[in-house]
Amino acid sequence: MLEELKDKVCRANLDLVKQGLVLFTWGNVSAIDRSSGLVVIKPSGVSYDEMKPGDMVVVDLNGKVVEGRLRPSSDTPTHIVLYNAFPGIGGIVHTHSTYATAWAQAGRDLPNIGTTHADYFHHAVPCTPDMTAEEVLGEYEKETGNVIVKRFESLDPLHTPGVLVKNHGPFTWGKDAAEAVCHAVVLEQVAKMAFISYTVNPDLTMNDLLIEKHFSRKHGPDAYYGQK
Amino acid sequence: MLEELKDKVCRANLDLVKQGLVLFTWGNVSAIDRSSGLVVIKPSGVSYDEMKPGDMVVVDLNGKVVEGRLRPSSDTPTHIVLYNAFPGIGGIVHTHSTYATAWAQAGRDLPNIGTTHADYFHHAVPCTPDMTAEEVLGEYEKETGNVIVKRFESLDPLHTPGVLVKNHGPFTWGKDAAEAVCHAVVLEQVAKMAFISYTVNPDLTMNDLLIEKHFSRKHGPDAYYGQK
Amino acid sequence: MLEELKDKVCRANLDLVKQGLVLFTWGNVSAIDRSSGLVVIKPSGVSYDEMKPGDMVVVDLNGKVVEGRLRPSSDTPTHIVLYNAFPGIGGIVHTHSTYATAWAQAGRDLPNIGTTHADYFHHAVPCTPDMTAEEVLGEYEKETGNVIVKRFESLDPLHTPGVLVKNHGPFTWGKDAAEAVCHAVVLEQVAKMAFISYTVNPDLTMNDLLIEKHFSRKHGPDAYYGQK
Amino acid sequence: MLEELKDKVCRANLDLVKQGLVLFTWGNVSAIDRSSGLVVIKPSGVSYDEMKPGDMVVVDLNGKVVEGRLRPSSDTPTHIVLYNAFPGIGGIVHTHSTYATAWAQAGRDLPNIGTTHADYFHHAVPCTPDMTAEEVLGEYEKETGNVIVKRFESLDPLHTPGVLVKNHGPFTWGKDAAEAVCHAVVLEQVAKMAFISYTVNPDLTMNDLLIEKHFSRKHGPDAYYGQK
Repeated sequence: MLEELKDKVCRANLDLVKQGLVLFTWGNVSAIDRSSGLVVIKPSGVSYDEMKPGDMVVVDLNGKVVEGRLRPSSDTPTHIVLYNAFPGIGGIVHTHSTYATAWAQAGRDLPNIGTTHADYFHHAVPCTPDMTAEEVLGEYEKETGNVIVKRFESLDPLHTPGVLVKNHGPFTWGKDAAEAVCHAVVLEQVAKMAFISYTVNPDLTMNDLLIEKHFSRKHGPDAYYGQK
Repeated sequence: MLEELKDKVCRANLDLVKQGLVLFTWGNVSAIDRSSGLVVIKPSGVSYDEMKPGDMVVVDLNGKVVEGRLRPSSDTPTHIVLYNAFPGIGGIVHTHSTYATAWAQAGRDLPNIGTTHADYFHHAVPCTPDMTAEEVLGEYEKETGNVIVKRFESLDPLHTPGVLVKNHGPFTWGKDAAEAVCHAVVLEQVAKMAFISYTVNPDLTMNDLLIEKHFSRKHGPDAYYGQK
Repeated sequence: MLEELKDKVCRANLDLVKQGLVLFTWGNVSAIDRSSGLVVIKPSGVSYDEMKPGDMVVVDLNGKVVEGRLRPSSDTPTHIVLYNAFPGIGGIVHTHSTYATAWAQAGRDLPNIGTTHADYFHHAVPCTPDMTAEEVLGEYEKETGNVIVKRFESLDPLHTPGVLVKNHGPFTWGKDAAEAVCHAVVLEQVAKMAFISYTVNPDLTMNDLLIEKHFSRKHGPDAYYGQK
Repeated sequence: MLEELKDKVCRANLDLVKQGLVLFTWGNVSAIDRSSGLVVIKPSGVSYDEMKPGDMVVVDLNGKVVEGRLRPSSDTPTHIVLYNAFPGIGGIVHTHSTYATAWAQAGRDLPNIGTTHADYFHHAVPCTPDMTAEEVLGEYEKETGNVIVKRFESLDPLHTPGVLVKNHGPFTWGKDAAEAVCHAVVLEQVAKMAFISYTVNPDLTMNDLLIEKHFSRKHGPDAYYGQK
């Protein structure tokens, strides 16, 4: 069932290790087959060293396990909420990557201060507010998804494909699992550069014209980057 | 004698190198066989390149060498004090890993400011106070253990499995040598992230609800992370 | 056509990866054959993993493609402006390397505060001013080149072979592609060291005598470094 | 001539690369044969990739080349001054390693704030003052050595085996080339940790008792670290 997608999701999970974004069993990648409404996701707490496509778990959009010997990632309910709320996305990544997580712990939006950021994220990567007692003590992972969705009320998730969950870490997404991983790598890199930039100059400024130029150079009808 | 445990302790010592936590011969791992009360520990100042299980030294809970051609780690008396004081632990690690040691040099408790920390350490990883002249000039390594034990008077060592010895470096522990190494890796990672977070925002805040949620998600009767 | 130069440019592009200066398809290297006035440059958005000399694109000094199956780097017009304005240079590199880009985002000249810097760059590596609406909305990549050239009005591009484009990243150059890559590596290293130095001591001072001594030790008629 | 020493010096130079302390041809290692008063040193500006023991240059204590096809390191006069002034040392290393060089650029002594430092360096690693016009414009490399020697007037070079040359970088030494490399690695590591420690807590304090304890634990008649 969904063998090709399991293969892609498994490979995307292993790419997190190759890119240096995860330690131990931390982090998870999922992807959705929109035609069937089924989500393929990493199992919980399984070592990356021995992970195989057949270990991936298939769940439906209510979070019910449809296939798989193993329990799905404990963050599965967060993924499900995002797939339901953001119909344009096909893959999701969660990591505790060093610099993005450090910004999440700082409780700060990651501002768009350079063309590297603007090539992939239209605006600041937003940080969510503190979760309430009701949210944490209730269906916590599901509420984490709801907090993200609420934070995106006036934002386009396809133009700003990532978020910092306060005191926790980043989620990124994309049209498929591979693009979501790519956005996780870029988010970590721009978080690292912003840390250095603000340490060098706390009063730095961005030129908003560059944001529009670079974002549109790679996105939308007038894109002209790459081999098209 | 205790061949299986020597094998595990040797492998755990080599894992410190693989994880990038030690230079040269720095750092040491031990484990205890609670039934016999014997501790297996790394020899002092021996190169990791050629370390074999047979090089491990066996000492009793008074610190007396029971078996081994080589001298045990100079930090052995610290390990012994901790095994005597914390009956629930089975393995201990000491490193001079970069970020954890830097916090120890800063003389600051490492605060719990994110779920990565809360998944493994219930509270701040405490920093010990300055050692007195009596302690330093007396049985120094043993007194280092005593200072740690005193710092944990109102803390549960199983819930906060690590400490920063002021102006020195971290000790971590766990149910066995492998878990103690895992805690050393996590401590280094959260020390690095906290350094970045506080540089980005010195006034950051933590949501205490997240601490309880994440700690209990992985520990205790209601744990639901991983397979099982 | 220009097979040898394509080979060198391709290798120089791959060296950016080896040196850890680029992620994904970011970055680009070009070189010019001054006798024919033709420039060889990396194609746009092509993976480094499978890049071959035959993928390089040949353009003339008006930016017109003369040979090549693929589209040239989107930054080609910037390279062309620099080759036209700086007749002494033979190779150009653009990266988003971490520390140099962070200084560009900080909007600060990278000061010459050590002999490492002075061995390669005579003065501060300058940061360009904000680009105007006319420049960004017009022929943006060409105007990026013009902004660089204007910033060098009173500077010798052969003595200070690099620039930080504000909120964007570094360009470096040299007598050929290999030297331009070397300057990109040095710029990243001195940007990293300056970040640390200023964090340790915001009031640090440089000894201007060292700048002249070290720069002249490696450059000009009295150079005596290396095997000559 | 001195084939064994050439072998050791060549290997020590290559160890600088392995330890991540040098880029390109930066850095150099020498060692002295005290019985003949001859010094073996790396050639100037030669790639580490192809360096062989036979490339090493032999010079006497006046800096005159006694054997070798290649020119010796441009820093040779600095090494010679140190061998003449510090009769107890047998090997010298110079690098532009990232964190040690950054402290040298900051113009700050590297304080002894932890046992890692105290295990190898008795006191702060001193930073030299600005060189005068006479020193820079005269026999610069020789004067660099003189400035170091003057800085050690009231310090024991065997107990504090390293220095930061202001706005330049570190020199370390030891009983032979291998120990000088070891001290270069430790200096880089303690410079990195001190950078982090002071960023976390600018008002940190050291316990002087620990300095004496740790230094004497590894040095002098009562040393008890290692297999002795």
